[in-house]
Amino acid sequence: MATPVYSSYPPSLSPAQEKFLVSTVKDWAIQNGLVVRPSPLVVPEGVNSKGVLATNAPVTLFPSPFPRACFEEALALQTVYNELYANISCDEEWLCKIMEDLIDVDDFMSNLWKVHLAVKKEGYVQPLSLGLFRSDYMAHTPSTASSSSLKQVEFNTISSSFGGLSVGVSSLHRELLSSPSGLPTSFPAHPLFDNNLPPENTAVVTLSGGLAAAHAAYGSSKSSPALPLCIIFIVQQGERNIFDQLALSRQLTQVHKIPVFRVTTNEILDVTSISDSNPNRPLLYTPPQSRDTPFEVTTVYLRAFYDPGDYTSARDWEARTLLERSAAIKCPTVLNQLSGCKKVQQVLAEPSGPDHLSSFLKGADPSVIARLRNTFAPQYDLTSNGQGREFALNPTTAENHVLKPQREGGGNNIYKSAIPEFLRSLPETEWKRWVLMELIQPPPRARNIALRSDGEVILGDVISELGVYGTILWDQGGKILHNDQGGYLLRTKGKDVNEGGVAAGFSSLDSVLLF
Amino acid sequence: MATPVYSSYPPSLSPAQEKFLVSTVKDWAIQNGLVVRPSPLVVPEGVNSKGVLATNAPVTLFPSPFPRACFEEALALQTVYNELYANISCDEEWLCKIMEDLIDVDDFMSNLWKVHLAVKKEGYVQPLSLGLFRSDYMAHTPSTASSSSLKQVEFNTISSSFGGLSVGVSSLHRELLSSPSGLPTSFPAHPLFDNNLPPENTAVVTLSGGLAAAHAAYGSSKSSPALPLCIIFIVQQGERNIFDQLALSRQLTQVHKIPVFRVTTNEILDVTSISDSNPNRPLLYTPPQSRDTPFEVTTVYLRAFYDPGDYTSARDWEARTLLERSAAIKCPTVLNQLSGCKKVQQVLAEPSGPDHLSSFLKGADPSVIARLRNTFAPQYDLTSNGQGREFALNPTTAENHVLKPQREGGGNNIYKSAIPEFLRSLPETEWKRWVLMELIQPPPRARNIALRSDGEVILGDVISELGVYGTILWDQGGKILHNDQGGYLLRTKGKDVNEGGVAAGFSSLDSVLLF
Repeated sequence: MATPVYSSYPPSLSPAQEKFLVSTVKDWAIQNGLVVRPSPLVVPEGVNSKGVLATNAPVTLFPSPFPRACFEEALALQTVYNELYANISCDEEWLCKIMEDLIDVDDFMSNLWKVHLAVKKEGYVQPLSLGLFRSDYMAHTPSTASSSSLKQVEFNTISSSFGGLSVGVSSLHRELLSSPSGLPTSFPAHPLFDNNLPPENTAVVTLSGGLAAAHAAYGSSKSSPALPLCIIFIVQQGERNIFDQLALSRQLTQVHKIPVFRVTTNEILDVTSISDSNPNRPLLYTPPQSRDTPFEVTTVYLRAFYDPGDYTSARDWEARTLLERSAAIKCPTVLNQLSGCKKVQQVLAEPSGPDHLSSFLKGADPSVIARLRNTFAPQYDLTSNGQGREFALNPTTAENHVLKPQREGGGNNIYKSAIPEFLRSLPETEWKRWVLMELIQPPPRARNIALRSDGEVILGDVISELGVYGTILWDQGGKILHNDQGGYLLRTKGKDVNEGGVAAGFSSLDSVLLF
Repeated sequence: MATPVYSSYPPSLSPAQEKFLVSTVKDWAIQNGLVVRPSPLVVPEGVNSKGVLATNAPVTLFPSPFPRACFEEALALQTVYNELYANISCDEEWLCKIMEDLIDVDDFMSNLWKVHLAVKKEGYVQPLSLGLFRSDYMAHTPSTASSSSLKQVEFNTISSSFGGLSVGVSSLHRELLSSPSGLPTSFPAHPLFDNNLPPENTAVVTLSGGLAAAHAAYGSSKSSPALPLCIIFIVQQGERNIFDQLALSRQLTQVHKIPVFRVTTNEILDVTSISDSNPNRPLLYTPPQSRDTPFEVTTVYLRAFYDPGDYTSARDWEARTLLERSAAIKCPTVLNQLSGCKKVQQVLAEPSGPDHLSSFLKGADPSVIARLRNTFAPQYDLTSNGQGREFALNPTTAENHVLKPQREGGGNNIYKSAIPEFLRSLPETEWKRWVLMELIQPPPRARNIALRSDGEVILGDVISELGVYGTILWDQGGKILHNDQGGYLLRTKGKDVNEGGVAAGFSSLDSVLLF
């Protein structure tokens, strides 16, 4: 049973120890780029009008214990998950059937689907797709079980974030655990610290490696005369998590020597174009700072356009369509983005029904498919009467579930006893926008101390979510050119916080101490 | 003549180019630790009460042109300068004579001298001294000369700062000049940019190498039982330039595997001690976060105690005395700190009088001594009637001079036409606190653009000062164990600013583009 590990953790800190740790972590974060731009809650807009200020990313002072078997299983399954979602994205017909129910209730899904249909009508010119994925899990630890098991919370196919910063947190905790050299005194003693460091985190290498593989696979310029090639990152205006993204572009420019440019969603139509006269539809990018040096874009990496809020006008949809119909490799394509919706995860995880896993992973060993299936918590559709509706409306069974919206971008989960009343407040036609999921039970006595971006230090009961990064490059016929996994994120939030984006300071970046 | 180089520089920026450069530099600085804690002028105290915020160090958008011959001469002379100041520090009798005049008018000098005398009386137990020096120059470019010559502004023997951050500025400018890879477009084109990058800056390696050499030379523990060894950095409370210092401690811990602790001046007496029973007087340091793990300090690196303002009470002088009488190698000793006073520089640079250089550099080639002497601008004593007083009081000759206080720490220089009136406002007995120095004439048409820490972007006429770092370890008998140079700082300030600390935002960190 895992409880004893958690109940004695973290070691308690004297005031001098806490002062030292907090001050060390604050400075280390700034020195090593483990930072975010401060939110207006931390620094009023007027004070930071030129956008020069930064603050530490929210981080835990200690790494969190995590069961070694669960961690290793998550890493072992990542390339299988990569393949599963690549294959789902290749099966337009299957996806279309899944989408049918959603399209008439969800404008966002509907608009994405329309982008796909429009490009399909014209004909796609780029057979390759790139996925930079993150599969999120918890160590499911019900009080009745003798050990924890790995359960998936969600699978992200677009804008999987925090790869850049999570590398920093692992380094921070590794350094604290081993400093000063030969006689570590940064942390108080604890049995879990003996000969035990968080695993090195390769997220930046892995994710950048995927982008570099796509860049190479694009081949030579399709323009005449040939143009220099580049990658563009599509980003939100005023992105506060920019340093997470810059960790990837730095790796691409310094190690892979690939030009990388950042383009905000509202700039796309001003700085990129497709020449009507070239049937190959190369995507041209003209840097505003160097208008006589156009580049051709091999790969479009989306760190925006995942959320309905990213589309403020028809112009944004036009921009998304421009990217989709171009010859650039998209990370992700519209189809790949749609394959990450909660509805797909629910269909895959439905306890009864067709064996989708086996049909999407034809070459896989059945034991591997069984292990993948073991990571699913039961999920239910609410479109029609059935087990899902029963569990959701009955206050006793609702207590063991969470209601999640289909959409990407987080926010708005409904928990436990709030579910029946919430559902009854909606017309039944709206229910298909939601998925019911059996609650994963994290270790009950886990605790940690967080340093927030505003400098507040908070000790409390926590829930940790493990994310594992993977990257895959495939062609629409199903051929896989690159499939890799590596690097992880541990996101730890206060137990009274049901949902939270890390950058907003409600939850913290963390690393794993395996046991 | 250098003027044509400067008059066409920097290339002009379109609004889009400036926007790109400013935004890139802002983000790069934060990502790479080229940062400072913001001053209360940038962020009101209340907003940053937990001290979490950081902002970019003030930097120039472009590297500044600097004559190659001057740069190379400064590097070539650094180890000779190191030796000169080590030898001066060994000659207590000579220094005592220099001090005599100052001691009765300058409390600070007087108190430092008393610390030395007290420890001398008890007997020094550590024969080794460490110097981390920076020699500051300008490219003297009078309108009548056909080329620039190297002239020394001052020589710093204590708390020589900005080694850590200056490495970042060189990297920043090198990266901007060569990105994206293969087709640089970050800067507009300019002939000076062709196949020309700022030299790589090794300041962090050089300065940390000096500290590591001292740590090694200290030998094994002098305590019984033996204690683990460490280096301590003595720092000011609320230091805003902390990331400059952390660049050195990171190098020491990560590369040299030496434990480093930071101790603020007001903590010294609480966390360090000398055991009365041990005649070797090892300096013990007990980390507040780990009170049962005492360390023995091999090397005390002062990044405080250089300025009278750093001594707020008798307790601070007691702390300085404790360090001085301990077995730890001091960087610097009181004698070495005093050797850096303006008075010494004035005596060395006095156009007439004894040949101090030759007597302090007995083994040196006369041609090298001549080159060293060539870097001096004429300096004059004001204690008695003579050339110095004449030049200072005559408005015509004053126009070509600057009046500098003897003290370390900058501030309060009096320039040109303000000199006669200022001197006449002081009783003559005070005049010996000041040194008159012939003004160095920087290139007249130099311009650059600075990004300040508050985000303001300023284009204007500038003056650049080159600092070269050196480090030397010697014993009081004059034997040299380590003598190295490497790394540089270019500090560029607006021409209307006569004096300024970089961290306060009045001047900027820069790098050199040699021509």
